[in-house]
Amino acid sequence: MQDQFEPLPLIRIVLVATSHPGNIGAVARAMKNMGLHDLVLVNPNQFPSYEASARASGAADILDQARVVSTLAEALADCHQVIGASARLRKVAWPQLSSREVGEFAVRAADVGRVALVFGREDSGLTNEELDQCDKLGHIASNPTYSSLNLAAAVQVFAYECRMACGAVVPQSEGYRYQPATHADMEGFYVHLEQALLQVNYLDPNKHERFMRRMRRLFNRAQPDSKEIAILRGMLTAVIKASNPQ
Amino acid sequence: MQDQFEPLPLIRIVLVATSHPGNIGAVARAMKNMGLHDLVLVNPNQFPSYEASARASGAADILDQARVVSTLAEALADCHQVIGASARLRKVAWPQLSSREVGEFAVRAADVGRVALVFGREDSGLTNEELDQCDKLGHIASNPTYSSLNLAAAVQVFAYECRMACGAVVPQSEGYRYQPATHADMEGFYVHLEQALLQVNYLDPNKHERFMRRMRRLFNRAQPDSKEIAILRGMLTAVIKASNPQ
Repeated sequence: MQDQFEPLPLIRIVLVATSHPGNIGAVARAMKNMGLHDLVLVNPNQFPSYEASARASGAADILDQARVVSTLAEALADCHQVIGASARLRKVAWPQLSSREVGEFAVRAADVGRVALVFGREDSGLTNEELDQCDKLGHIASNPTYSSLNLAAAVQVFAYECRMACGAVVPQSEGYRYQPATHADMEGFYVHLEQALLQVNYLDPNKHERFMRRMRRLFNRAQPDSKEIAILRGMLTAVIKASNPQ
Repeated sequence: MQDQFEPLPLIRIVLVATSHPGNIGAVARAMKNMGLHDLVLVNPNQFPSYEASARASGAADILDQARVVSTLAEALADCHQVIGASARLRKVAWPQLSSREVGEFAVRAADVGRVALVFGREDSGLTNEELDQCDKLGHIASNPTYSSLNLAAAVQVFAYECRMACGAVVPQSEGYRYQPATHADMEGFYVHLEQALLQVNYLDPNKHERFMRRMRRLFNRAQPDSKEIAILRGMLTAVIKASNPQ
């Protein structure tokens, strides 16, 4: 269905000094779900680990390829754009983007070269010295009284926005397997309905105009497909036949 | 900064037969981050639990208020719109929305009454019988070869899209604390720059036009603010003064 799925090899996720190994695994899974593969860990508390592998579920390949480095500068050396995730909106001189804008920006920038999305410590985020190495900050709109997302949840949102920015599309579908009914289908149905309702003496011939308008409102709202109209008309045919047995 | 933050009391998260209690905690945290509070658990494997509370972090209140029921119908009884999360795009007669459309739809529908977002089992999602109780399906665009998000990650994405659909806005900011430089500021700067460069004999008076055009391209791209221009001009003043010490 998603023929246009494109991996995003030039968008890197960088985790700085992650405390909980389970979060690294959950990040790997979120990345793979969204088509990201490049994970760099700066001074993780523990890696590799059983917990990370367990939480990664089917995304062990992301962990296997992950690179561990000892400084943020090393993680960013080959990147031409660096976006730091920040739970707080900062009153600083960094350009600040919403998570949606980050997705759009990162995908555009990845046409030119490598882009890093940097995520700080679970408890305290990125230090000012680390932010100095970022070109922009990205911010997820959240509850101001409880704004700090779990690390993997934050990666999920940014990775999701990168995916959406690729033009990820769910096929427009109201779920119909058949062509929508045409205007002529609908008109044929209303004639048939009126006929059936008169036939069964439901409809007062003097009031049928107003009544039929109500029926039109109802059935038009339902936007039936051609198959459904065929079924409804089959029912009406049966009604007429049953009430008028030669 | 987010003055317009509005909680979303009429959007309910329903988890069906969740296996891992840690996921319930992570869901609670994701919900609270995004301003959702109404959690209903249908036949959870284990609840309450230490693991759920640990993963909920500061969102214990969501778990405390969570309701446990034994049938999906009970969880949905007071809802007027029900959206089922589905990892697969289904060839069925359910209207199918992208996660982005789900956010927009749910927030609009919550103006009228209660809306439920329903999430199935970690391993197998929702059964067809459960899908029958949904009005629409919601789908997160993902890697077709690894499409199933962690439960809490999926709730995070849908809850995030509800939040974004409320018009959550990160203040447009290029990070400047000062007014952007005006055109006149910029022109004043270029005159000053040219004067300084001539003064220090850097600029060949015969070639300065072309050179200054390059300078304009450079500095215009940087979109300096008024303070930065003041600083740059201070530097130029210093240069001129230093090279012409009366």
